[in-house]
Order: sequence, then structure tokens, then C-alpha cells
Amino acid sequence: MINVLFSARASQWAEYEPHLRKAFADNDLTVNLATDHQAGDVDYIVFAPSGPVSDFTPYTKTKAVLGLWAGVESIVTNTTLTQPLARMVDEGLTRGMVEWVTGHVLRHHLGMDQHILHQDGAWDDTPPPLAKDRRVTVLGMGALGAACAQTLAGLGFPITGWSRSAKAIDGVTCLHGDDGLKTALQTADIMVLLLPLTDATENVIDADALALMPKGAVIINPGRGPLIDDEALLDALNSGQIGHATLDVFRIEPLPQDHAFWAHPNVTVTPHIASTTRADTASQVIAANIAGVERGAPLQHKVDRDAGY
Amino acid sequence: MINVLFSARASQWAEYEPHLRKAFADNDLTVNLATDHQAGDVDYIVFAPSGPVSDFTPYTKTKAVLGLWAGVESIVTNTTLTQPLARMVDEGLTRGMVEWVTGHVLRHHLGMDQHILHQDGAWDDTPPPLAKDRRVTVLGMGALGAACAQTLAGLGFPITGWSRSAKAIDGVTCLHGDDGLKTALQTADIMVLLLPLTDATENVIDADALALMPKGAVIINPGRGPLIDDEALLDALNSGQIGHATLDVFRIEPLPQDHAFWAHPNVTVTPHIASTTRADTASQVIAANIAGVERGAPLQHKVDRDAGY
Repeated sequence: MINVLFSARASQWAEYEPHLRKAFADNDLTVNLATDHQAGDVDYIVFAPSGPVSDFTPYTKTKAVLGLWAGVESIVTNTTLTQPLARMVDEGLTRGMVEWVTGHVLRHHLGMDQHILHQDGAWDDTPPPLAKDRRVTVLGMGALGAACAQTLAGLGFPITGWSRSAKAIDGVTCLHGDDGLKTALQTADIMVLLLPLTDATENVIDADALALMPKGAVIINPGRGPLIDDEALLDALNSGQIGHATLDVFRIEPLPQDHAFWAHPNVTVTPHIASTTRADTASQVIAANIAGVERGAPLQHKVDRDAGY
Repeated sequence: MINVLFSARASQWAEYEPHLRKAFADNDLTVNLATDHQAGDVDYIVFAPSGPVSDFTPYTKTKAVLGLWAGVESIVTNTTLTQPLARMVDEGLTRGMVEWVTGHVLRHHLGMDQHILHQDGAWDDTPPPLAKDRRVTVLGMGALGAACAQTLAGLGFPITGWSRSAKAIDGVTCLHGDDGLKTALQTADIMVLLLPLTDATENVIDADALALMPKGAVIINPGRGPLIDDEALLDALNSGQIGHATLDVFRIEPLPQDHAFWAHPNVTVTPHIASTTRADTASQVIAANIAGVERGAPLQHKVDRDAGY
């Protein structure tokens, strides 16, 4: 019998419980799944930072903590968490992100807002350029960034992908390091932010970075709010250096009603919907990972504490 | 020396002339390209219905008429046109259509308008469903319809493609005939219209067809205006049977200012921008087709007068 503790919001327990039970059965695991095990008895913790567990010290027998989130910046800073930690890498989460990013890149590429906002009888039949003439940069070549970059490349956009360390991804011009970042910014007609949040990436999009981008460029951020210096972005929007920003993530969520982003005509706020862990597919990922560890395989999607992701 | 007559609007001559001259040279063709040849001397006509030629009778030596448009319904009804006629099948036109259709399908799938139109501080973070749970039907499996269907299938949408005659296209559930059309309508959460306009397809989307669709379905028409019975569509929008219509083509273009489509909150009018023949790529298509005929090859993309497309 494997004891699995579920520590997340109560509403998530209601959503996940049936899917987890099915996934454990599908993986031939005999599991005692609960929200209230004795700490010393727990083999695995399914975890979100919004749940009750914050001190991992008493979980002495726990073999792994399985996060429900792709982003782990609010987990890795917990010094009591010494157990192996897996981030969520979920096909549902990846697909959702690809759909949202592709949709908003095409929205800006095609100039859709003009038609959605202004049904005024104007008839300007100048067509938009083709994707081959619109350069898109994706910052962050993890599972989500790479999947978005490859889908956009398939639609014909010339894609530059930037990451901290060197990568090679079919159909994507891969850059890395500080020089690579400069080029990635300079060639971004549309910029998609999918970096993890670390000390090194906080405020990566600051006044200097914004000034390097082509005038009128579009920023799309479904990654993490603090990747952007909000004040610098507002200045760049007001000067016209940045044409539009579509933002799904923020330093404070929900974004406060009085934040300047809500009122700015060239900002679109979306309420952290770009991608969400889906209970059905995520439960299968968790069960398969536990089944692997029980068989002696390494924990999948393990977080590197030093890198912070 | 091959005599090629260019018969389209003067603005198109300015746009096409340099690209055509380059394309003829690229194909090793020695061409006398002009807008004013003697009719009896003309070997080929590059043609749009908006140009000066309407009576083809004096063009006795002409081997082929090469249309600049993908849709030929306004050409095939010209009884003086007995010369072989080619429609435009242009990679630039196809790519533009794929980008526009994919963008608007994703726009409706993701519910973007809610966020573009209402930046009011509301924070509902319920994510949209994944593409795998959104059924899309494409009516018309010609070059444009098939390319759109395959791109949407690649994004994960379950795609049904309907055409008059049976087809087989990878990743697409292909239906045909009257029974197939009924099923294609009944399963269309989002419907894309890319049929040619013929006597058989005019008003294919009438009150009966609209009633078969799932309640709240979305219609996207980048094909031809008369495929839709406008009054039936307005009734279906007013009853909520159809949730939204995004229309790029109309019975009269520009769409008159007083047409009900402009004012309807659930209609988005776009000014026939979904796809346009691009002078650079289209000129290469025309030159390659003429070079082929000069070598004795059959005319490519030849229109079937009986079918009407």
C-alpha cells in the first residue's frame, strides 16, 4: 500500500480525486490516497503551493513531491523541501499553451483587433503580410516554449528561440547567452515569453531590452509576470516603442482592478488562462511517475534546485 | 516571341508588371507583355474580371486564359470564353488563407473577443477546452480547404471535411454527398466555408442547414458571399442558434454601410482580406504554366466548365 497525500486547494481535491484514483488503477498501483495522512507515513505528496502543507520537515519517509504546476519558483524557495521534486509536464498543459500562443500570435499577425473592435463600415482590403515575413521570437525553450516554437514554424513564421543553455530544435533558429538574447530581441516583431522565473530571468524584459526590439513590436506573456518590468513596459507602450502587450500572468493575481494594464488601450489582460494543468491528463502523468519510481526508475521532470527550474 | 496580354485593373498592372517580367525571364520565356496587344496576335491572357476584356471572341489564336483569382464563378458564365481557362492556385494565396482561417478558428475556440472587447477587471480563470474537444467542419476540400483542414488537424482539432465528390485527406474525416453534408453540419462547433460558388452551392447555408448545426455554433466564411442566405443567418444569430459569424466575403463588396451585418453584435465583418493573390508568387505560377504549355504539357489548374470550378 502506497500512501499518497494530496495537498492543494479543496476545490482541486474535488476535481482531481476521481482522476487520480483512475490513474493509479490504470498503472496497477495500490494507493491509499487522502488529504490527511500522518506525515511520517506519506510516500508521495501531490502538491500545489495553495494547499495546507508548507513545512516538509516531518515528511521523513516521502520519496518524491509531485507538483501540479509547471512553474516551481514559489516551491523551490521553500528550504524545508529537501525531498526530490517533480514539476508538472502534462500534454494537456502543453497543448493548451500551444493553442493560446498560436492564437494570439495569429491575432496580432493578422491585425484582428481592428475588425473585432471597429465594425464601423470601413473597407480597407489591404491584406496582412504572410507569416514568412513576420519574425517571432520565443524566449524559453523548455517543453512549452519548444512546442510553441515548432507549431509557429509549421505555420511559416521565421522563429528564433532563446534559452540560457544551447539547444537544437528542428525548424527553429536557436540562440543562447547574452549575445544571443540581444539578437533575439532585435529580430522580434512578435515576442513570446515562456521562460521559467528565476533570479536570472526576473525583469529580463526591462527598459534596455524593450529598446532593442523593433519599433511597434508585440509582446505576449503567458510565462510569468515578473519576467517583465511593468513600469518599463508601460513607458514603452506610451512611447509607441511597443505596439501591444497581451499579458496572461502578473506579479499579483488576480491583477488589481486599479492596475494601469487594465485601462491601457494597447494592453490585453487575460486572466491566467493560457494554460492550466488538466486533471485527467495530469493525473496520468503523476501515476506513471510514481509507478516508475516504485519500479526503481529515476523521477521524471525532476527540478534542478540550483538552476531553480 | 510569345504575346501575353494583361487584362486587369490598372493598379494591378503596376503591381504585377515587374513580377511577371522577372517570372518570364526565370522560366526562359521570351515574352512581349503588354496591356494593348491586337486581339488576333495574343497567345495568352492574364485575366481578372475587373479588367477591360469581356468579349473573348476576337482572341482566335489564344492558347489559354490565366486567371488571377481562385474563384472563377464570374468568369465561367462568360459564353464568349471558349479558350482553356486556368484558375489561380498560388502558394501565397494558400498560405494567406491558412493563416486567416487558423487565426479566426483559434480566436473563436479561445473566446478571445471576451478579452479584447471587455477589459473591465473581471477575472474568470476558467480555461477554454482543448482543441481536441472542439469539432471543426470545413466545407470544400479544394486546394484551400484541404490546406486549412490539415493545419487545423495538426493543432489537434477533430476535423470533418466535406466536398461534392469523395476525397481522402490525411488526418481529416472526409464526407461527401447529401448525407455527408447533414453529418458535417450536425458536428460543426465551428464551420469554415471554402466551397466554390456554383448553382449547387449558392445558399448551401440556408435556414435548414443552420438548424442542423449545434446550438451556438460559429460560422467563418472566407469563401464566397452567396454560399450563405444572409436573412437566414441573421435569423439564426438573433435566435442564438448561431453564436457568431465572421464573414470576409459578401454578395455586394464593399459591404454596404447600412447592411445589418455591420451593426450585429455577433457578426464580425472583415473586408475581403482572408487571402489575396500575391503578385510575386502568382507571377511565377503563371510563367511556369505558360512555359509548360509551350513545351506541350497540359494546362495546369484548368477549370471544368460543366462543374463551374
